[in-house]
Amino acid sequence: MPGTARRGRRPGAPDTRADILEAARALFAEQGFRRTTIRAVAGAAGVDPALVHHYFGSKEDLFVAALALPVDPRQVIGAALAGGADGAGERLVRAFLSVWDDPAYRPHLLGLVRGVLEPEGHRLLSEGFLPAVVLPAVDALGVDQPERRMALVASQVAGLILLRYVLEAEPLASMEPDAVAAVIGPTIQGYLERPLP
Amino acid sequence: MPGTARRGRRPGAPDTRADILEAARALFAEQGFRRTTIRAVAGAAGVDPALVHHYFGSKEDLFVAALALPVDPRQVIGAALAGGADGAGERLVRAFLSVWDDPAYRPHLLGLVRGVLEPEGHRLLSEGFLPAVVLPAVDALGVDQPERRMALVASQVAGLILLRYVLEAEPLASMEPDAVAAVIGPTIQGYLERPLP
Repeated sequence: MPGTARRGRRPGAPDTRADILEAARALFAEQGFRRTTIRAVAGAAGVDPALVHHYFGSKEDLFVAALALPVDPRQVIGAALAGGADGAGERLVRAFLSVWDDPAYRPHLLGLVRGVLEPEGHRLLSEGFLPAVVLPAVDALGVDQPERRMALVASQVAGLILLRYVLEAEPLASMEPDAVAAVIGPTIQGYLERPLP
Repeated sequence: MPGTARRGRRPGAPDTRADILEAARALFAEQGFRRTTIRAVAGAAGVDPALVHHYFGSKEDLFVAALALPVDPRQVIGAALAGGADGAGERLVRAFLSVWDDPAYRPHLLGLVRGVLEPEGHRLLSEGFLPAVVLPAVDALGVDQPERRMALVASQVAGLILLRYVLEAEPLASMEPDAVAAVIGPTIQGYLERPLP
């Protein structure tokens, strides 16, 4: 009986990992990243908090795992920003396109976007992905006002996703990646570096 | 019997205008702006095409009426771009914010955005609002590659709507309009003027 099984601690059950991820995703969506604790996730999944740490590592790791992304966005963003702020805008757009333009990833990513666009999913982006994944990468550049810069970068990238991939609006949908990087790269660069009000 | 009434021509019926708008919205959403004809809208609403012209004017006018926007976006965009390309980016962002930041308009606009985010509504933006409303305004600036510039402007504005108003992501959601115009204005300006690949 699954109802009974859920209540006990089941360190060896084969679907324990899946139960934890499901509980994590629900809590992150409901309460945002900051207010969600490993303890609360463990409680919702009916397991010991230590097991959550054992399986998934840090809360950031658990959050990324709960999104079930095809690649770890921290590695993609981290690699693009590793060379410092100079040229980071264009590198970031190229890294982003290399993932999104891959037909193997696209359906899965579109499913995630649809989830975020549902009211129940808003916080996965606004209070999850942005502060837990994007902000640390921007902050690592050592720029001022990292939250504001993160939000501006996110606004351009979100619009690009919406028009190029979700709505498939032309001519943006079929523009060559090089051309997209050449025109949107400087925007991202400006948001990362330009003096802000 | 509404079923029977729909088939005849009802020039005087009080809900004829509403029927025409409903038919127009459905057809624009299904087929996009270019492939939708006044004749097809009239046929779906069970009225004479001349009546559609009489009530709503051009196909562009009918499209804007079918969106039931609180303001005519052609006037807002036109006024912002009327001074020519110089400074148009910031004027466009300010005009946009003056509508979206108005609490009287917000709920209605959010409803429209939700409709566009549904798969059935995608074409209202990608094959409706962009080519029928935004493109003519960009084209009137006399710039090269107006379609590409329109799509780039739309990508930044769409992302701003998504983060500031739909997801209410901080710090963008509560940033002062002046600050938003100061940082996003130059992006729009670049998309309108910068040499493109």
